[in-house]
Amino acid sequence: MFPSCINDIIESFKDLPGIGEKTAERLAFSLINFDKDRLTSFSDAIIAVRDKIKYCSVCGNITDNDKCSICNDTNRNSKIIFVVEKAKDISLFEKINVFNGRYHVLGGLISPLDGIGPEDVNIDNLIKRIDSDNVEEIILALKPSIEGETTMQYIKKVLEGKNVKVTRIATGIPMGTDIEYIDAMTLEFALEGRKDI
Amino acid sequence: MFPSCINDIIESFKDLPGIGEKTAERLAFSLINFDKDRLTSFSDAIIAVRDKIKYCSVCGNITDNDKCSICNDTNRNSKIIFVVEKAKDISLFEKINVFNGRYHVLGGLISPLDGIGPEDVNIDNLIKRIDSDNVEEIILALKPSIEGETTMQYIKKVLEGKNVKVTRIATGIPMGTDIEYIDAMTLEFALEGRKDI
Repeated sequence: MFPSCINDIIESFKDLPGIGEKTAERLAFSLINFDKDRLTSFSDAIIAVRDKIKYCSVCGNITDNDKCSICNDTNRNSKIIFVVEKAKDISLFEKINVFNGRYHVLGGLISPLDGIGPEDVNIDNLIKRIDSDNVEEIILALKPSIEGETTMQYIKKVLEGKNVKVTRIATGIPMGTDIEYIDAMTLEFALEGRKDI
Repeated sequence: MFPSCINDIIESFKDLPGIGEKTAERLAFSLINFDKDRLTSFSDAIIAVRDKIKYCSVCGNITDNDKCSICNDTNRNSKIIFVVEKAKDISLFEKINVFNGRYHVLGGLISPLDGIGPEDVNIDNLIKRIDSDNVEEIILALKPSIEGETTMQYIKKVLEGKNVKVTRIATGIPMGTDIEYIDAMTLEFALEGRKDI
């Protein structure tokens, strides 16, 4: 029904997460009103993702160099490593601007049910970094789920005997949320993690 | 914070309607997991929109030829013209597969408050088509708003004296909607448009 180039762009938009048929059509038609320069830069940006994106050889973050900008930044404290599941998670913590250490991206969580073992997750490189940089603390910022807990326990275990403190970010009630809607396990964690006021 | 090519693609996604900062970031990161071929076809599709999309010289629909596929289809009845605001509206009616006439895209609605007069809307070509094709009926499928009503009244007026029937699609209560939530003007139209059962 549409010209073939519109069908093609609809198909491409539909490949994106959360974009269904109707939204893809709306986005495709919006492109018709873009000026030529904006369409060129859109296309160029996709090609750049295709050709330039690599994973940082140190921490596993995405980068267009061998090392990512954070690993290259000599002003950052290499004694503390923040461990996250996905490269995108780094941006969440960078935006709140409270952490000046380094990161390590696991690229996944251990999940025996899905056949994902420790060897499928970027843990070996983490251990090497801890040894070579004399890391003092690693902060685990993984989601509190069965996979997240399993991964945290595994990391804790393989680091036993090494002189590194292993912490995890707090599990509890998010700001602004009514306690009524919080599940039992989170409440239990929140109670365990209570603090003096 | 992100590699520059990721920032570029985030900016491009943010140009799309309904895509904010967070969604743009999520879409950009999803591209990293696309294989190279899919990224190439995505980029190619955008370039095709840039270079190939034109407006049909007859009806104003989008096309990659001089005339759109509907105007080129000799099996369609050229005595009835369905008048829509946007090229995209055509697909809505084509999908329900009940209309075998031709279309005409106005490309906008008359809106004196926004400085959009009849000369800014593709009405002259509509009149020429009515004359040259001996059109018997035009069906106005414009949205029932002040601009839509103004445009419909204007078209009705300029066609006075010509031997063409001018109709509009019904305004009323959408299927499945509780009457309680319908505005007064729609109710009035629905009452006026009542039919024997």
